[in-house]
Amino acid sequence: MPAVLSIVGRSKVGKTTFLEKLIPEMSRRGYRVGTIKHDAHDHFEIDHEGKDSWRHREAGAQTVAIGSPSRFALMKKIEKELDLDTIIATYFPDEDLVFTEGYKSGNKAKIEICRKDLQSEPLCSQADRLIAVVSDFSIPLEIPSFDLENIVGVADFIEERFLGREKGPNIVLRLDGKKLPMKSFVKEFVMGGILGMLSSLRGYENPAQVDISIRLKKD
Amino acid sequence: MPAVLSIVGRSKVGKTTFLEKLIPEMSRRGYRVGTIKHDAHDHFEIDHEGKDSWRHREAGAQTVAIGSPSRFALMKKIEKELDLDTIIATYFPDEDLVFTEGYKSGNKAKIEICRKDLQSEPLCSQADRLIAVVSDFSIPLEIPSFDLENIVGVADFIEERFLGREKGPNIVLRLDGKKLPMKSFVKEFVMGGILGMLSSLRGYENPAQVDISIRLKKD
Repeated sequence: MPAVLSIVGRSKVGKTTFLEKLIPEMSRRGYRVGTIKHDAHDHFEIDHEGKDSWRHREAGAQTVAIGSPSRFALMKKIEKELDLDTIIATYFPDEDLVFTEGYKSGNKAKIEICRKDLQSEPLCSQADRLIAVVSDFSIPLEIPSFDLENIVGVADFIEERFLGREKGPNIVLRLDGKKLPMKSFVKEFVMGGILGMLSSLRGYENPAQVDISIRLKKD
Repeated sequence: MPAVLSIVGRSKVGKTTFLEKLIPEMSRRGYRVGTIKHDAHDHFEIDHEGKDSWRHREAGAQTVAIGSPSRFALMKKIEKELDLDTIIATYFPDEDLVFTEGYKSGNKAKIEICRKDLQSEPLCSQADRLIAVVSDFSIPLEIPSFDLENIVGVADFIEERFLGREKGPNIVLRLDGKKLPMKSFVKEFVMGGILGMLSSLRGYENPAQVDISIRLKKD
């Protein structure tokens, strides 16, 4: 199950803008990131009028999916709002880290974005599981506080607090997108073998990160 | 697990138009219908540029969901196309019946839509699990054939062949959208109790179908 962190804050405070910087920073560090956007007012628009999937929904299909070689999409009509634990267990089994945008009243750990032109104090408190603030003014709470531009600082904090960043080298192996669990000695063996081979390649000069992607079947 | 039936046929033969008529007919009969559209060429457009969920995806999130009180949507980047059995087991647990549009090379039973201005024979054969054709010309195959406008006939065929339509009265009870399994004697007991109450209401005159929707909590 992925680590889950809710990014909360007042409307227009810049939650999406902040996530647009944080998501690529976490991806760059090798984590598979998912997001869940909360739309309290049922305003969201998805799909495009006139498309086949749109026509299926209009005709009364409860659940409509679209499958293609590189993407998958799903739209469901529901009777009762899904809670975060259900959404994550059902739909995010392969992610390492899931950010929610919103879900202020959910039960997940929260980072609040604050801006002085919108507020004098955060919306949430430690009682709501607020664990850090990202802000352009000083907030008198006993939790970490980051400047709005300090994406690296927030990413470090998330790694340390939620992702149990392992010290030293590590390898993550995914088969068809699914992480393959490996014991420490297997990891060391595989990593040693791969790096041993690569180290003899011309141009291989002590990289900090190695990403290998192998396609075995051409569709 | 729902019954699954693939609606196949040449491009532009009218698969979506046919489903636009068949879905409401099956819904009217009390079935919860889902659909899966196959897009072999990765052309599908979903989401709208500039929306928060779109921005999350652009930033590199692998899976993006949107939750609201009455709808749920999900978009995933995948490494390898999902097969129908995986899609159905993961995403359609609560449907009674799932139609796929396309998935001609899938392993599900198929109904092919045929039109004489596009072809002289069907694309699929009984070896592909073709079980019926819907067509505007006569097709010399030993399987049922329906006229393009005979939606009721196709719906009857699907009910008899796939949905094990029970003879006589039946009750389906859903709690928060999830079907509650009931043994026959419980069904009879509940149905008898409800119909007993309703039968004393003014205006109750031997209906063929009774649908009751109860909302217990006001959000």
